[in-house]
Amino acid sequence: MRTGNSDRRAVVTGGAGAIGSALVRALLAAEVPVTVVDNLSSGRRENLAAVEEAPGFRFLRGDLLRPEEIRPAFAGATEIWHLAANPDIRRGTVDPKLDLEQGILGTFHVLEEARRAGVARIHFSSSSVVYGRPDRFPTPEEYGPLLPQSQYAAGKLGAEGLISAFCHCYGLKATLFRFANIIGPGMSHGILFDLLKKLERDPRNLEVLGDGRQKKSYLFTDDCVRGMLLAAEKDPGPVGIYNLGSSDQITALEIAEKVVRALGGTARIALTGGERGWVGDVPVQFLATEKIRALGWSPRFTSAEAVDRTLPILRAELGI
Amino acid sequence: MRTGNSDRRAVVTGGAGAIGSALVRALLAAEVPVTVVDNLSSGRRENLAAVEEAPGFRFLRGDLLRPEEIRPAFAGATEIWHLAANPDIRRGTVDPKLDLEQGILGTFHVLEEARRAGVARIHFSSSSVVYGRPDRFPTPEEYGPLLPQSQYAAGKLGAEGLISAFCHCYGLKATLFRFANIIGPGMSHGILFDLLKKLERDPRNLEVLGDGRQKKSYLFTDDCVRGMLLAAEKDPGPVGIYNLGSSDQITALEIAEKVVRALGGTARIALTGGERGWVGDVPVQFLATEKIRALGWSPRFTSAEAVDRTLPILRAELGI
Repeated sequence: MRTGNSDRRAVVTGGAGAIGSALVRALLAAEVPVTVVDNLSSGRRENLAAVEEAPGFRFLRGDLLRPEEIRPAFAGATEIWHLAANPDIRRGTVDPKLDLEQGILGTFHVLEEARRAGVARIHFSSSSVVYGRPDRFPTPEEYGPLLPQSQYAAGKLGAEGLISAFCHCYGLKATLFRFANIIGPGMSHGILFDLLKKLERDPRNLEVLGDGRQKKSYLFTDDCVRGMLLAAEKDPGPVGIYNLGSSDQITALEIAEKVVRALGGTARIALTGGERGWVGDVPVQFLATEKIRALGWSPRFTSAEAVDRTLPILRAELGI
Repeated sequence: MRTGNSDRRAVVTGGAGAIGSALVRALLAAEVPVTVVDNLSSGRRENLAAVEEAPGFRFLRGDLLRPEEIRPAFAGATEIWHLAANPDIRRGTVDPKLDLEQGILGTFHVLEEARRAGVARIHFSSSSVVYGRPDRFPTPEEYGPLLPQSQYAAGKLGAEGLISAFCHCYGLKATLFRFANIIGPGMSHGILFDLLKKLERDPRNLEVLGDGRQKKSYLFTDDCVRGMLLAAEKDPGPVGIYNLGSSDQITALEIAEKVVRALGGTARIALTGGERGWVGDVPVQFLATEKIRALGWSPRFTSAEAVDRTLPILRAELGI
């Protein structure tokens, strides 16, 4: 393949996930050859159906915890997009080893393989949850202290730290993306997913965890991927942190009301009460995005619009 | 043992190290029974010679990476002082697995054992290096972003994150201590140790890594331990972060000059040059200590005094 991007060769870990597969499509559209590394524990091969035959696409089923399985993907790569992780924050709070392994150990092995193969760049999907429960909104990238409320958040913070250390010790260059709630096609978890599943089981009652006032920013997957590609291109290094979120918030109750309306409007919403929806939850999230906006990015959709766009897609995927 | 502290039972991991053994002595002096857990990889049993026969003292040789070895120490404990770690930042930059294992995995196992045993409190020896290369001096606890420059720093940040997550998910309470350079008896590494060893090998020439202008704050071990005990007593939880450092700095060159003077004043100092002494080094370090001072703590010694006190102790220990 001889193209404008023929000197680039990307590896996308977690490339069969909801965000990963959108990123893979965008990279291939830019004529960057992509090797997906995924163990398919939460990612799905169907998410990659549209690109299976694309020139430059390669899929390697492998687990980040078994470096020898993933090693072949790294030879000749010029950039790693490391998205593989346990995607479900709540699972990690009942099984704390999950995020230790998939978040921290997985990242360590990716870094070691990148170093071994001489890869110069790494881009990492971190999360707004590294901010813990901030007292400043919108929360800027330089916020501290960072006190994770969940194993998942600790995994993201630990991974960020390892990446930073590898950059400063071994000359890698990294961009770290701290995501708001990213929603769009191919989701396997999250509030929209959960609410739809609950209504499928019982169309008359919809239980919403917490007091419904949890208020977060939601970003449509394509907006997220555009921001990642732009920051990766523009960041001067050695380590750039970028928040990625929309410029507004929506409450859990507002989302539940949208879901109920979409499904006929008859279900009764019942709140379980309490400020947090679940142990480990961060009830308010709103990210400052001046840094990524200064590079020329802006999201096409608000939080409410992202929910509105995602709902019919998810209903079609789930058959609800 | 029936005492005012008879309801407390402490575990000190890394209790055979320089800081750990001083902490053990202080806890026993306060009539708190102490079980030391140490694998003696860098700690030394001699550091505990003064307390081997003390009532309430127990030593368990065990490795944090083998939870079944350390488990017996946790039964009935009320507080964990988790100090075990690779103490040598430079080693971690050439063997990155070291800090992953001793820093992050070790902490994870300590947290899991604490949770299993129902221990309510954990106190952790973190480090100023979690601040990366800050642009604000003195650096306060809420400084961000946290971009570790070494594997050791990444290990400390990762461990802090895990501790915070366990506190918020499982009801533990933690104090995190971010240490300046702690110096005093029983040291096995660090600039004073290195310089003395170099002069022993060649009394005429003293090589100093970097341009000599690296400027850091040094705190005498006893001052450090008093601060830890005070914050542990007063912090309201769930997670309190405390910088611990003296209120001044001293340069690498000034330390070298003190060492040369102490050994007769004839050695010629040769600087290797460069802003950092070594890969992973943070050349300027100065911590804001208002938070711990507000609890009533202040160090007895300045950085220069801490060096002056430590030099003859270390010379006696090393026979130099």
